[in-house]
Amino acid sequence: MSQYQFEWPIRVYYEDTDAGGIVYYANYLKFLERARTEWLRSLGIEQDTWLAHNIAFVVRKVELDLKKAARFNDELTVTVDVIKKKKASLMFEQNVLGKDGSVHCSAVVTAACVDNSVMKPVAIPTSILSRIETEV
Amino acid sequence: MSQYQFEWPIRVYYEDTDAGGIVYYANYLKFLERARTEWLRSLGIEQDTWLAHNIAFVVRKVELDLKKAARFNDELTVTVDVIKKKKASLMFEQNVLGKDGSVHCSAVVTAACVDNSVMKPVAIPTSILSRIETEV
Amino acid sequence: MSQYQFEWPIRVYYEDTDAGGIVYYANYLKFLERARTEWLRSLGIEQDTWLAHNIAFVVRKVELDLKKAARFNDELTVTVDVIKKKKASLMFEQNVLGKDGSVHCSAVVTAACVDNSVMKPVAIPTSILSRIETEV
Amino acid sequence: MSQYQFEWPIRVYYEDTDAGGIVYYANYLKFLERARTEWLRSLGIEQDTWLAHNIAFVVRKVELDLKKAARFNDELTVTVDVIKKKKASLMFEQNVLGKDGSVHCSAVVTAACVDNSVMKPVAIPTSILSRIETEV
Repeated sequence: MSQYQFEWPIRVYYEDTDAGGIVYYANYLKFLERARTEWLRSLGIEQDTWLAHNIAFVVRKVELDLKKAARFNDELTVTVDVIKKKKASLMFEQNVLGKDGSVHCSAVVTAACVDNSVMKPVAIPTSILSRIETEV
Repeated sequence: MSQYQFEWPIRVYYEDTDAGGIVYYANYLKFLERARTEWLRSLGIEQDTWLAHNIAFVVRKVELDLKKAARFNDELTVTVDVIKKKKASLMFEQNVLGKDGSVHCSAVVTAACVDNSVMKPVAIPTSILSRIETEV
Repeated sequence: MSQYQFEWPIRVYYEDTDAGGIVYYANYLKFLERARTEWLRSLGIEQDTWLAHNIAFVVRKVELDLKKAARFNDELTVTVDVIKKKKASLMFEQNVLGKDGSVHCSAVVTAACVDNSVMKPVAIPTSILSRIETEV
Repeated sequence: MSQYQFEWPIRVYYEDTDAGGIVYYANYLKFLERARTEWLRSLGIEQDTWLAHNIAFVVRKVELDLKKAARFNDELTVTVDVIKKKKASLMFEQNVLGKDGSVHCSAVVTAACVDNSVMKPVAIPTSILSRIETEV
């Protein structure tokens, strides 16, 4: 059993790299978001359905530690753990791991639930909140 | 006087390159679109104003010739020429030029005017059409 | 049996979309390239191994027909067919299909084999060429 | 006189936005990096010249506060202030400001100087270090 709540595989393509030969630092935020999307999907929560009701999760805060460069063709695993569940926001701990388990980057991400039509915070709908477990 | 209807300068940043050390091929489409946006702006046409009325230009066809790799830090010039003006679409000839005038890539791009709420083609509003001159 | 030589699934994430609510047109080129990379991998050809020998495939020409907008969360299939195999280049026909089989975009892509250290065309190594079958 | 060491203008294009109608969160990291690149250039430091000597700045840590969504067509200003100058790393405070001076996002970014051939930290060359002033 994994020590993480959720894991998602990512392959590094040319589009993800830069002329330094490594994954461009902004692209880790894409990887982290793909994994959060798939974690929500694994709980039966489809963001397009909620967006049609003007409910969206918007990232408010990111702390990103870039520890070890990933490269073209690498097979990565992105982890998702909810470490704080509040009325209108979620805090995640996420890692981007290499095949050997080494940590390429780790992040703490805070996402707020917003009414997308006015971009104001709203309470996370209970049908979503009830499906989310926190670890800590 | 330039031989082109419109020119827009682009600097190549790390984000634009890939591990091959060159500009990633998809990113030329970003450069071409920035130049078309700035060309519209130069005619007094702001796309966000039109989008609020559900009018958008959507690319339907691209022919892209990649002739010479551009690299990190290069100063490029993107050109815009309207080569066909139809009721509901525009056809552009565009180039990405290096500082020495060499052609990194050339493209023919067809953009359709659509009602963005239903993604259906509509006639280009006359207040837009009247400001657009064709060369050919 | 599929009518295509190779198929690769792609999920549309927020990163792929734009404020028009649809997949940003340049991002189809990323999807097409991911599928070509995975097709090469399915033949036992890893591009990072070849890049270490300065052998790379560089796209020279793209004809892209954008037929139907794809949206956030869509499950797409990208197809790969080699339609021409020359000494130093390959021509591909590729499609981006929706779940119902409708064509979001179709493309013809020409990729040249180059010596990446000098960006000059070279013959495709026979160990690669022998694994590639053409349809036409 | 500006309160910031350096400022760089950024226009928001379609490529920067997502289906939520706002700038996609990862793209702020691109904006921040463009401004750091232009700040270095304003000091006479060209990264491609240094990369040819295997000297590169690699981001190690990012703290990103996303305060107010930016949108398509917005004119933004990205600021750069060096808040810590160490032997082998620089710490920056950066903001993305709207036309009215409101803060869209603020960030603290730590970049390490590395030997790009082995990805190991090295002392920032004195010819670079001598041109960089810190504020704090």
